[in-house]
Amino acid sequence: VTDLAPPRGTRDFYPDDLRLRSWLFERFRSTALAFGFEEVDAPIVEHAELYMRKAGEEIVEQLYHFQLHERHLALRPELTPSLARMVIARQGALRLPLRWFAIPQCWRYERMTRGRRREHYQWNMDVWGEPDVTAEAELIAAIFHALDQLGLAKGDVRMRLNHRALLEESLRATVLARRPEAFAPLCVIVDKLPKLGRDAVIEQLTDPAHAVQLERSEAEAVVAQLEAKGLDEAARLAGAESPALAQLRRLFDLLDAYGVADRVGFDASVVRGLAYYTGVVFEAFDAAGELRAVCGGGRYDRLLETLGGRPLPAVGFGFGDAVISELLAERGKLPQPARALDAVVFPLGEEERALAIRVARALRRRGETVELVLGALKPKRVFADANKAGARHVYMIGPDERARGVVRVKDLATEAQRDEPLATLDEVIT
Amino acid sequence: VTDLAPPRGTRDFYPDDLRLRSWLFERFRSTALAFGFEEVDAPIVEHAELYMRKAGEEIVEQLYHFQLHERHLALRPELTPSLARMVIARQGALRLPLRWFAIPQCWRYERMTRGRRREHYQWNMDVWGEPDVTAEAELIAAIFHALDQLGLAKGDVRMRLNHRALLEESLRATVLARRPEAFAPLCVIVDKLPKLGRDAVIEQLTDPAHAVQLERSEAEAVVAQLEAKGLDEAARLAGAESPALAQLRRLFDLLDAYGVADRVGFDASVVRGLAYYTGVVFEAFDAAGELRAVCGGGRYDRLLETLGGRPLPAVGFGFGDAVISELLAERGKLPQPARALDAVVFPLGEEERALAIRVARALRRRGETVELVLGALKPKRVFADANKAGARHVYMIGPDERARGVVRVKDLATEAQRDEPLATLDEVIT
Repeated sequence: VTDLAPPRGTRDFYPDDLRLRSWLFERFRSTALAFGFEEVDAPIVEHAELYMRKAGEEIVEQLYHFQLHERHLALRPELTPSLARMVIARQGALRLPLRWFAIPQCWRYERMTRGRRREHYQWNMDVWGEPDVTAEAELIAAIFHALDQLGLAKGDVRMRLNHRALLEESLRATVLARRPEAFAPLCVIVDKLPKLGRDAVIEQLTDPAHAVQLERSEAEAVVAQLEAKGLDEAARLAGAESPALAQLRRLFDLLDAYGVADRVGFDASVVRGLAYYTGVVFEAFDAAGELRAVCGGGRYDRLLETLGGRPLPAVGFGFGDAVISELLAERGKLPQPARALDAVVFPLGEEERALAIRVARALRRRGETVELVLGALKPKRVFADANKAGARHVYMIGPDERARGVVRVKDLATEAQRDEPLATLDEVIT
Repeated sequence: VTDLAPPRGTRDFYPDDLRLRSWLFERFRSTALAFGFEEVDAPIVEHAELYMRKAGEEIVEQLYHFQLHERHLALRPELTPSLARMVIARQGALRLPLRWFAIPQCWRYERMTRGRRREHYQWNMDVWGEPDVTAEAELIAAIFHALDQLGLAKGDVRMRLNHRALLEESLRATVLARRPEAFAPLCVIVDKLPKLGRDAVIEQLTDPAHAVQLERSEAEAVVAQLEAKGLDEAARLAGAESPALAQLRRLFDLLDAYGVADRVGFDASVVRGLAYYTGVVFEAFDAAGELRAVCGGGRYDRLLETLGGRPLPAVGFGFGDAVISELLAERGKLPQPARALDAVVFPLGEEERALAIRVARALRRRGETVELVLGALKPKRVFADANKAGARHVYMIGPDERARGVVRVKDLATEAQRDEPLATLDEVIT
């Protein structure tokens, strides 16, 4: 084997890395459970067709797909289509609303120029079957709950939100009356406004070879709306009767009850790059604005229909492990979780091995985590390793202890030593 | 999308399925931790080359591999090669012995005729850097510890073990003197003895087109050795000086100290189908012998060398989620883990929603798992859902409670009701 590195863009998890991953996942999981969500999962390999949307999304362009035995398969780039498939398969039998969460590994075949990885873990929470923005509010509250659990300060992450229907309402009488299917690719284009700039976006929106094909004046109006400063200006553009605007106002009231309204702002330029969003969209960033989005989500009330299911409103978010880890590291909040090792059991010689095994059995039966020394090691080495591993006690047994029917217990923190009778320990296992 | 099923041979995990998976994994994990092992992981996609061994193993023939952007990749069929890669990458910097465990999803492209799946989760425990059978004993003890934790009776699973070097020693002066590289493919063939029968195995061993190419008398001697009844007959064949035999006897003494010797038997026919095993090999089966192997493992002291690393002794096992689930189901030991839902919070009307949110926040801050009713539901429906979900309490707030500044708490088990002042709850969140 010539290449001993993991495939480009992927990671190995050594014990320290895995403990950190578990620390993060436990906080995702405990947050989701605190909000009454149930964990689900789906295959990491799906039919590629499940993702083949034609709106020009980056996530579809970067699909990790391949032919295998005459099937066209893909490593999932996101979980939502799998969830939609699962919901459709049992639609009618599931009690609504569904509150589902998952922490899937997702893949994208991305150019590696930006130091980005091709796999990441993405915490997902989704509500299926609730049309009201009460669901959005609950999800946004859960995100801040998790950020708090991770030890970030309240000001470290800010959320920006918008409502795609503001844009949709404004185009309904013109562009969308002619070509309603233009809305999804339009959103995918305008999502790139911060990256591409005004002119390039207008050019794409008016490109006669593209699915959107706006008039220049229409494209300019779209961009103007994305540049609206604050909810009041958006309201002027949208009109007082706008249902989207009413939903946004209601959502901010709910977020106030959750105590997180001051961490969320309206931002007319937030559109998100996924084609299927239909309503509220949101994304959270580090306050300094130096990193990519910490998480993002939105409402996707028509996804089930496009996959052949019956209509069902839905909203959800994805929260990756990469950006949050960068942010925690920057803020000095990334912990170094230690091994939880209660005891090292150390037979000084082969004559004591059977007794040492019995000691280890008894301690494990008591619920302790126990490393048994497997080779013929010197005490110096065993104590150095035990200290390095953070063990609380070393249980030592040599010829003297064997003769006296005890095991010598050393507390590594206090260095105190005591004898424990083997008979007492044996009682645990017999 | 035409196909809403997951890809053939793969599974969706709805909440009930996921809870069961978590129940199983928690027992794998707590066992490994009790034995002082540390969790690791590696990418689910690896360079296919990592698995391209030429000994005719089924696991290599069934490799789930594909070309992607000029790379030859594979979904991992097993974790061991990834672990070997990780060990080599840090060889010298890692404190030996390593005690590593993992619960990776593994893939094999298997014909679907036997109702088998193409993915499974496989609990792995491996010890790297310990040449003594103390490591084998520790691993076998961990397997029985897990089986006990899963609720199986002591007689439900039996382990059979053997030592590949018994076979290797017996061939050393003849076949292996001429062609030492024949040993791995020889083991892969004789592993199929129970399936193919004596004649077919002898035919393959003597096939001049195959890598093994024994004389007929040699092949017959190999099969005779596999048919040895018990350790004493094996000893007669191996000779009193056999190091492999001495290791086996020592291993059985150690297993006795672990209290599991009566659940393990010597079986000369156990060889295991992986090419890289060099020493002790073992596999556990349901006592009735109706299912495939519950788990299996062995010593693979030369794997690191074959991958380009420095020599390092190693031993490990894999324990899949499929057969153990079948066995637990057969024995009526498969649980139906319930949701752990502490409370449902129910605003009777929109006027009470903000207060209900504050109640949910307070309960979540207290560490409770709380489902907040998101829509305008009728009490009958809410209580039916709460009961179905196994919730302990429903916190209800209507106009009357709002006026009195309380929330009504109903205990679903006892049906007792009481009022809790909102001010008390608010103290938790302010």
